[in-house]
Amino acid sequence: MSNEELEALRGQLDDINLELLNFINKRAELVQEIGRVKEKQGMNRYDPVRERKMLDLIEAHNEGPLELASLKHIFKEIFKLGLDLQEDNHKKALLV
Amino acid sequence: MSNEELEALRGQLDDINLELLNFINKRAELVQEIGRVKEKQGMNRYDPVRERKMLDLIEAHNEGPLELASLKHIFKEIFKLGLDLQEDNHKKALLV
Repeated sequence: MSNEELEALRGQLDDINLELLNFINKRAELVQEIGRVKEKQGMNRYDPVRERKMLDLIEAHNEGPLELASLKHIFKEIFKLGLDLQEDNHKKALLV
Repeated sequence: MSNEELEALRGQLDDINLELLNFINKRAELVQEIGRVKEKQGMNRYDPVRERKMLDLIEAHNEGPLELASLKHIFKEIFKLGLDLQEDNHKKALLV
């Protein structure tokens, strides 16, 4: 009985993991696109003011249970993935 | 013109950030629930085999652009948040 309960919850967790996977990849695609637009305009890819604004928006919408410090930590890691990918694309473009 | 394009892309990015916020918090709630079920059954909260299976599922569904190594890194951080929260709840329960 309880094992069935655990399995059902784990199924839900797998679904959420796949939603996260989807949105993290979608986000990376979008960051690549933003990188291309910024490059055309000769803008710097990393923009700390914009990063701050994104974190402020996250703070304003957080209803828990996770605390803001934990969320900031995870989102900074997610932001970093996007920037790393832009950096890779930039290097590849330079090699072409 | 291009600034409008950039603003539109940034709006999409904010939407994705809020979707991620929603799913990360939903995931944390579910992990708390799983922790309670496991505790009732006297099971250990941390289960490396289960963590491995979650990562395998993520690997099987990844269509990029992010590479598996980057995704594993971010998901391990997300898993850690869930475990930390279970740990906090456990400590609070012991204090009651």
